[in-house]
Amino acid sequence: MYLRKIISLFVSVWIAGTSLAQNKTEDLTQYVNPLIGTQEMGHVFPGACVPFGMVQLSPDTDTIPYDFEGKYTGTVYRYCAGYQHNDPTIVGFSHTHFSGTGHSDLGDFLIMPTTGKLQLNPGTADNPESGYRSRFSHDEETTVPGYYTVQLKDYDIKAELTTSEHVGFHQYTFPENDDSHIILDLTHGIYNYDGKVLWSQVWVQNDTLVTGYRITSGWARTNYLYFAMVFSKPIENFGCENHEDQVYKGFWRKIDQEHNFPEMGGRNLKTHFDFKTKDGEKIKVKFAISAVSTEGALKNLKAEVPHFDFEKVKTEAHQKWQNELGKITINASPEKKTAFYTSLYHTFINPVEYMDVDGQYRGIDHQIHKAEGFVNYSIFSLWDTYRALHPLLTLIQPKRTSDMINSMLAHYDQSVLGMLPVWSHFGNENWCMIGNHAVPVIVDAWINGIRGFDSQHALDACVSSATNKYYGNIPDYMKLGYVPYEKNATGSSMTLEYAYDDWTIAQLAKSIGKNDVAATFEKRAENWEILFNDKTGFVGAKDSKGNWKTPFDPLQTHDEGFIEGNAWNYSLYVPQDITSLIQKMGGNRCFSDHLDSLFTMYLPDKYFAETEDITREGLMGCYVHGNEPSHHVAYMYNWAGKPWKTQERIHEIITTKYLNKPDGLCGNDDCGQMSAWYIFSSLGFYPVCPGSGEYAIGSPSVKQGVIDLGDGKKLHVNANNLSDKNIYVKSLKLNGKPINRSIITNREIRNGGELVFEMSAKPNKKWATK
Amino acid sequence: MYLRKIISLFVSVWIAGTSLAQNKTEDLTQYVNPLIGTQEMGHVFPGACVPFGMVQLSPDTDTIPYDFEGKYTGTVYRYCAGYQHNDPTIVGFSHTHFSGTGHSDLGDFLIMPTTGKLQLNPGTADNPESGYRSRFSHDEETTVPGYYTVQLKDYDIKAELTTSEHVGFHQYTFPENDDSHIILDLTHGIYNYDGKVLWSQVWVQNDTLVTGYRITSGWARTNYLYFAMVFSKPIENFGCENHEDQVYKGFWRKIDQEHNFPEMGGRNLKTHFDFKTKDGEKIKVKFAISAVSTEGALKNLKAEVPHFDFEKVKTEAHQKWQNELGKITINASPEKKTAFYTSLYHTFINPVEYMDVDGQYRGIDHQIHKAEGFVNYSIFSLWDTYRALHPLLTLIQPKRTSDMINSMLAHYDQSVLGMLPVWSHFGNENWCMIGNHAVPVIVDAWINGIRGFDSQHALDACVSSATNKYYGNIPDYMKLGYVPYEKNATGSSMTLEYAYDDWTIAQLAKSIGKNDVAATFEKRAENWEILFNDKTGFVGAKDSKGNWKTPFDPLQTHDEGFIEGNAWNYSLYVPQDITSLIQKMGGNRCFSDHLDSLFTMYLPDKYFAETEDITREGLMGCYVHGNEPSHHVAYMYNWAGKPWKTQERIHEIITTKYLNKPDGLCGNDDCGQMSAWYIFSSLGFYPVCPGSGEYAIGSPSVKQGVIDLGDGKKLHVNANNLSDKNIYVKSLKLNGKPINRSIITNREIRNGGELVFEMSAKPNKKWATK
Repeated sequence: MYLRKIISLFVSVWIAGTSLAQNKTEDLTQYVNPLIGTQEMGHVFPGACVPFGMVQLSPDTDTIPYDFEGKYTGTVYRYCAGYQHNDPTIVGFSHTHFSGTGHSDLGDFLIMPTTGKLQLNPGTADNPESGYRSRFSHDEETTVPGYYTVQLKDYDIKAELTTSEHVGFHQYTFPENDDSHIILDLTHGIYNYDGKVLWSQVWVQNDTLVTGYRITSGWARTNYLYFAMVFSKPIENFGCENHEDQVYKGFWRKIDQEHNFPEMGGRNLKTHFDFKTKDGEKIKVKFAISAVSTEGALKNLKAEVPHFDFEKVKTEAHQKWQNELGKITINASPEKKTAFYTSLYHTFINPVEYMDVDGQYRGIDHQIHKAEGFVNYSIFSLWDTYRALHPLLTLIQPKRTSDMINSMLAHYDQSVLGMLPVWSHFGNENWCMIGNHAVPVIVDAWINGIRGFDSQHALDACVSSATNKYYGNIPDYMKLGYVPYEKNATGSSMTLEYAYDDWTIAQLAKSIGKNDVAATFEKRAENWEILFNDKTGFVGAKDSKGNWKTPFDPLQTHDEGFIEGNAWNYSLYVPQDITSLIQKMGGNRCFSDHLDSLFTMYLPDKYFAETEDITREGLMGCYVHGNEPSHHVAYMYNWAGKPWKTQERIHEIITTKYLNKPDGLCGNDDCGQMSAWYIFSSLGFYPVCPGSGEYAIGSPSVKQGVIDLGDGKKLHVNANNLSDKNIYVKSLKLNGKPINRSIITNREIRNGGELVFEMSAKPNKKWATK
Repeated sequence: MYLRKIISLFVSVWIAGTSLAQNKTEDLTQYVNPLIGTQEMGHVFPGACVPFGMVQLSPDTDTIPYDFEGKYTGTVYRYCAGYQHNDPTIVGFSHTHFSGTGHSDLGDFLIMPTTGKLQLNPGTADNPESGYRSRFSHDEETTVPGYYTVQLKDYDIKAELTTSEHVGFHQYTFPENDDSHIILDLTHGIYNYDGKVLWSQVWVQNDTLVTGYRITSGWARTNYLYFAMVFSKPIENFGCENHEDQVYKGFWRKIDQEHNFPEMGGRNLKTHFDFKTKDGEKIKVKFAISAVSTEGALKNLKAEVPHFDFEKVKTEAHQKWQNELGKITINASPEKKTAFYTSLYHTFINPVEYMDVDGQYRGIDHQIHKAEGFVNYSIFSLWDTYRALHPLLTLIQPKRTSDMINSMLAHYDQSVLGMLPVWSHFGNENWCMIGNHAVPVIVDAWINGIRGFDSQHALDACVSSATNKYYGNIPDYMKLGYVPYEKNATGSSMTLEYAYDDWTIAQLAKSIGKNDVAATFEKRAENWEILFNDKTGFVGAKDSKGNWKTPFDPLQTHDEGFIEGNAWNYSLYVPQDITSLIQKMGGNRCFSDHLDSLFTMYLPDKYFAETEDITREGLMGCYVHGNEPSHHVAYMYNWAGKPWKTQERIHEIITTKYLNKPDGLCGNDDCGQMSAWYIFSSLGFYPVCPGSGEYAIGSPSVKQGVIDLGDGKKLHVNANNLSDKNIYVKSLKLNGKPINRSIITNREIRNGGELVFEMSAKPNKKWATK
């Protein structure tokens, strides 16, 4: 064990060393602009975190309560990440966030420093004086990977944030004031509603240490989070407000818990810690979290930040980012580097390490488990991320990929339903979206050579999920081969995605010699055909008796059997058998025309108004880059023998959909999926069908890229003659050998080598057309 | 460790053997009538439990919700134990109960078997058809220690209950019915209110195993209880109702959790498990609980009941009771034995073993701890039980006493306030009543030779509690020597009790050579004098400036500085220095006259109406046996040189206040305190001042008693010539040596021996009068 550790240390130092050698003169974090995507639809947060860290400490600019009956309210949707760039005030700094999701939760443990009259409500953006929030200006806001700072105008306080994996480190520079406060608002949350806090508890252990926890019921139905908070300066006074009428008080009524009473509990708890400060005095707050216990939080604190050296933690956070961003080095313009490294940054935020330093974590069975031999991860937005994020991590984060898969298998083991995660976070399955997309993540990793998990266990989990009687109309799907629309309004999307997932199971089964399983799922993989309507040329919706739903509107998403994509887009979702799909659609020319129409038609306003999550700018015709179902579509021209059209579209998407401004993302980043598309596509290839072991060739937009595949293996990508105009692939060589196809395989590149594109301003209509 | 276990096993077998040898022909459990005290004020439960077992499985006859604003509602007070004997219906059988308390909580995990149309609400007693409850008759109800059975008339189901320490074992004999149900109502509770359940969760693991938990906020502010439930027959169907509007549903809305969906969660969850039954078919349910996890519950189940043999568990429960009741064997009439063994039974119910079989338990810091080297107990109703229950356990349950004290010290270690328990249960401090009465329990045990805990740790805990800045006006008490009435309406009771507690700390400190600590607390022990008003001859109430509260009504409890006792009674609360009190009150004659008046005056109705917890029958004059503050008072004649008056009063209390009928207890049994008074007094002595090492002599009411002191030591008590008339002590011998004083010490009896009373029909006015 010890020897393994030394070897592993040696290897990692060596890897870090070689990786740094690539760019020892260059600080890659300088190219990351965490503000990109913080306005409108991007839904990323601008605050501080380390790669895959559980603590993601970021300013929240509003806390509008959600209508918890499930009614869609645009105002709250805005605050999935807690922050909108054009807001004028900051409510405070909370410790957990999603990066780029289209639904929201978390925002746990909000800290806010104030001076003067104590106010324990946040107030409103219109009238910040009415509460503890503060005005701020972007002129006085700086954010880089692992560090965020802003001036809180209303209090003349400089706020600085950095983190380790489990610890948020706050540094507040106060003015002189006898009435300075640090507020910890246990009621704050993203996607809040009255009653979300099931219980909260705070213990003031001594004049610098505070512990506690809260249990919330939000998107995560039961989220247990514990904390340990340490101040650099002794607390002068402390207290709380706990206005609630829902909880029986018993003999606690006898006790004044609001003033300097060290045990505070309730469902509506807002606490404050008071100090006298000198001008320019810094108060530092270390805030460690755990899903297990306050003891777990203390362990995390001791292991990661056993000191009060803010600069040290900030420097370490910077170095962690530098190391991770160094997984891919590129030669490109500063503008391109900004887009590229901001994207790469976004791909290393979610999932997060969801366990204590001793390996303990809370399972979806609400019990405490110990991760033996792996790091437990959470926040799996799988409907989004199986497409490109996980394939990217498989390529450049093989160890983390194994760990993520082992985390999914642990989830399966704990699931009373026998299900792999669908959309899971912080010890909960939240059942968002559709499909069985832990499956392609697992299979893609296996097919691409990741071996850090038990393949039979994985196959069992995939089969159990894919034949599950409790989930997503699978019994209907197994009986009929499709999900009828009267059983589920998104049945056609489900059918297409299940068919793809089934195909990937077959790949895993074949790979480990389970041919009977493979045969079953290969057959199921053909189910998409049942819903392909030869008369319309689109995938449609059928009822249980096999009748097509009529009337049928291929531009409409809602009530046509689909979700986040209409028939124009979703009919293309057969990544496992594009050749057959093309035949169904009338052959190469018809298919290519279909794609052309898709990319150029105008989507009438009435359809756009009903399309969530995206901006007009995210559209190309009726192609929606802001949502995921079509992320593979631009690459499909390759299969129709027109790779130059793929190259054109990819170039257009890359140059128009990822802009260096706060509203530069045209849809939710979706835990890195949007960004991972960008990374792959910039390097000239993309995993159209994860689990196939193949990548489709597109149009590289970096001149040179070096991809660190681990174990010292590097893939060099060169795009000779690349320019704004030279966007077409003239020819391609892999390790000196000409490639006359628009596909490369993972097997061909997984040991490193050199992929050389010759670029040109003209389409090469002869290359890779067969 | 293993050797220790064998020795310990050997010793316990040997003790059990010798104890049984006393009464091998006699089943002592036959004398226990668990129905005594189940009507009106006794507040004990009639169901099944083993001695000190965590599971106390008992029928609940109503579930009237409490007004949680704290308003006193008589109807709910009736249901402290969940059961009132004159109720016509049974709601179901829940697994946790208090025994005899004056405030309520628990009633966790209600199980109810039904047939026919499924109803998931309990319905009302007036209209049982409106819900799942059933009529029953006492003619078809039998209860003995460890076993309870009743016929549920509405469903023709025979219900039988038995338990081990952590497992409730249900056996239901059904009629033939295709529509039989076993309901698990997660919303049921004693002292219920809308919102008490913070969260509940049920997982159907397979067709016979169900796990889950709930967190409630009641008298225990945060009570975590987990369970594992196993059916003897596979579940046909299952489901739930979860009508609630307080919790955001998220994408769980997509799922029909109400029908055969194995993961059910919410705040208003009622679950059912359906079966087809044949006529006379038994369905058995094993229900294990844990405060730690469902895994803990499963461990407990496996360790205690790894089979489905109901009779075996019932027999074991019987044997456990027989062993414990054998700690004292007596020679007395069957009527006397019924009163005696029912009382002894009541003294062995609370506290309970609050930990899993592996030693894990939930501390008051809400974290999981492991009890190292002791058994962790909970349910400490200390204001009641320090008086006689704990002194009795110190005498006959020395190992459990050590464990209880170690449990209290662990509580202190976990307390952010640095407090020993006041009134604690199930991982919570509930702050009921006043004083610092873990202190006398610890000191009494130490002074009486219990050595199974760290005395310095104990002294630290006592001093920390007694000087605590957060609790019970201790800063006022330390500053002024008393608690002023304007600071606390019960300040005079607090002052008297703190002074006594202080005196006991001094005894512990002296005993371990901490003379400075002893001196400090000996001084504080005199504080009672400050509130003794020489002008009125009563203890009164003072404000912070030292002025007496006027007008002063010595018959009034409320707003006169007292709680559960008026000045007539409370003025006598100086157990640590009765001699000085007698002087203050004018000497022996005046004092004796005061006591005579107390026992004979008539308490006008207007005062009685305001006196909680007791019945008219519980009064003797103005002496209130149904409340605790005067439990020592009848013994005080001894100090005034009139022991025969003590003997008269004790005889009267014994014969009139403990009756063999459901309403036979004149006040709350208070976790065994009332019953422990009876046990001591029946044996002829009583701990007037726990911590002094002394017992006052009263009037024995058993002819012979053998008290098992552990380690083979036995104290034989003989009351020669005892009869209904011969109630006076003519003379007393200890180990053959005449005792001419009305006090014996623990040191004199702790190694066993023979205490021989000669009884007579006439008062001996010469014995022990000095």
